[in-house]
Amino acid sequence: MPSTPPEPSSPSSSRIILGIDPGLQTTGFGVIEVMGARLQYIASGTISTKHLPTGNLPARLKVIFSGICEVIDRYSPNEAAIEIVFVNINPQASLLLGQARGTCIAAIVHKELPLNEYTALQMKKAIAGHGKAAKAQVQEMVKRLLKLPQLPGPDAADALGLAITQAHAGHALSLLMESKGDARRATGMYVQGRSR
Amino acid sequence: MPSTPPEPSSPSSSRIILGIDPGLQTTGFGVIEVMGARLQYIASGTISTKHLPTGNLPARLKVIFSGICEVIDRYSPNEAAIEIVFVNINPQASLLLGQARGTCIAAIVHKELPLNEYTALQMKKAIAGHGKAAKAQVQEMVKRLLKLPQLPGPDAADALGLAITQAHAGHALSLLMESKGDARRATGMYVQGRSR
Repeated sequence: MPSTPPEPSSPSSSRIILGIDPGLQTTGFGVIEVMGARLQYIASGTISTKHLPTGNLPARLKVIFSGICEVIDRYSPNEAAIEIVFVNINPQASLLLGQARGTCIAAIVHKELPLNEYTALQMKKAIAGHGKAAKAQVQEMVKRLLKLPQLPGPDAADALGLAITQAHAGHALSLLMESKGDARRATGMYVQGRSR
Repeated sequence: MPSTPPEPSSPSSSRIILGIDPGLQTTGFGVIEVMGARLQYIASGTISTKHLPTGNLPARLKVIFSGICEVIDRYSPNEAAIEIVFVNINPQASLLLGQARGTCIAAIVHKELPLNEYTALQMKKAIAGHGKAAKAQVQEMVKRLLKLPQLPGPDAADALGLAITQAHAGHALSLLMESKGDARRATGMYVQGRSR
């Protein structure tokens, strides 16, 4: 369920995209800069709540919320992408993951970033060309696409993968908007009944 | 899973408690003031996302986050109580509810309020004396306990019920701390080896 469509941008303008792979124990984040079709790695990492007692959900969600706010303050992204999560085999785990994801979204909307949602399938297709790519394959492709000196960790790789997915989606959309612009101009000429 | 214990307070000091009944469509809130065993109604209401497209989860969570922040800014509560939600028959609904609840908790911890969690069962026991109380019974008891001129709506009643539950828990704790204080003083006298 994609929500706010990414802002179309001209191929020459630069956008900074934050990708988030939400999790209650480990939330991955990745920040990239996009200039037209060129991608530039900025940062990535994880926000961990493993040091906190499992039962203290408010404390764990606070770490996730503050962590994402800190990443946004530090790298000033223009937009964000987050993974759509699905119901787990364990319903209790789904409920916990839902709360972690809700917290991630709260931080992003609190910082007033436009946000898009992508499934893991969409991300894998965008990164590796097919939706069945293994974790290791996503890590390898993210390393190649961003010309990283080494493999990113799996959570950071997923987050960077989501940012790249949004970069591609935005780029495709900007091309579409340009062609629509041409179409609009053409229609305009027709409506006015004369050529200029 | 109760987390941060409510701050113990002397029976004479006043506390303002915010109760939250989280929901993706309707989040109930209730604010009460507690002076010892006396309860005073301050405000209650709902934060609704029904006017927004179902598919736009970030926009809906933004309304919930901003709504709770606004309530906190307006009534300056010292602490908060939120309902513990359980896995629904519909797992997808659980996932959505989880995200709404995560957003509520994010707003509360963002505003640095200590937060406790209570099950509906605990709230009903505290309000109506037994865990099987119907919604209407909770509304009626909340009306009586807070001397309201009319029945609060069901979501606001649950939220007020949670705030009252925390008031009772905090009051019991403060009495416990006082008796512990006596015990500590007694121990102190023993350690010092003389009576004063």
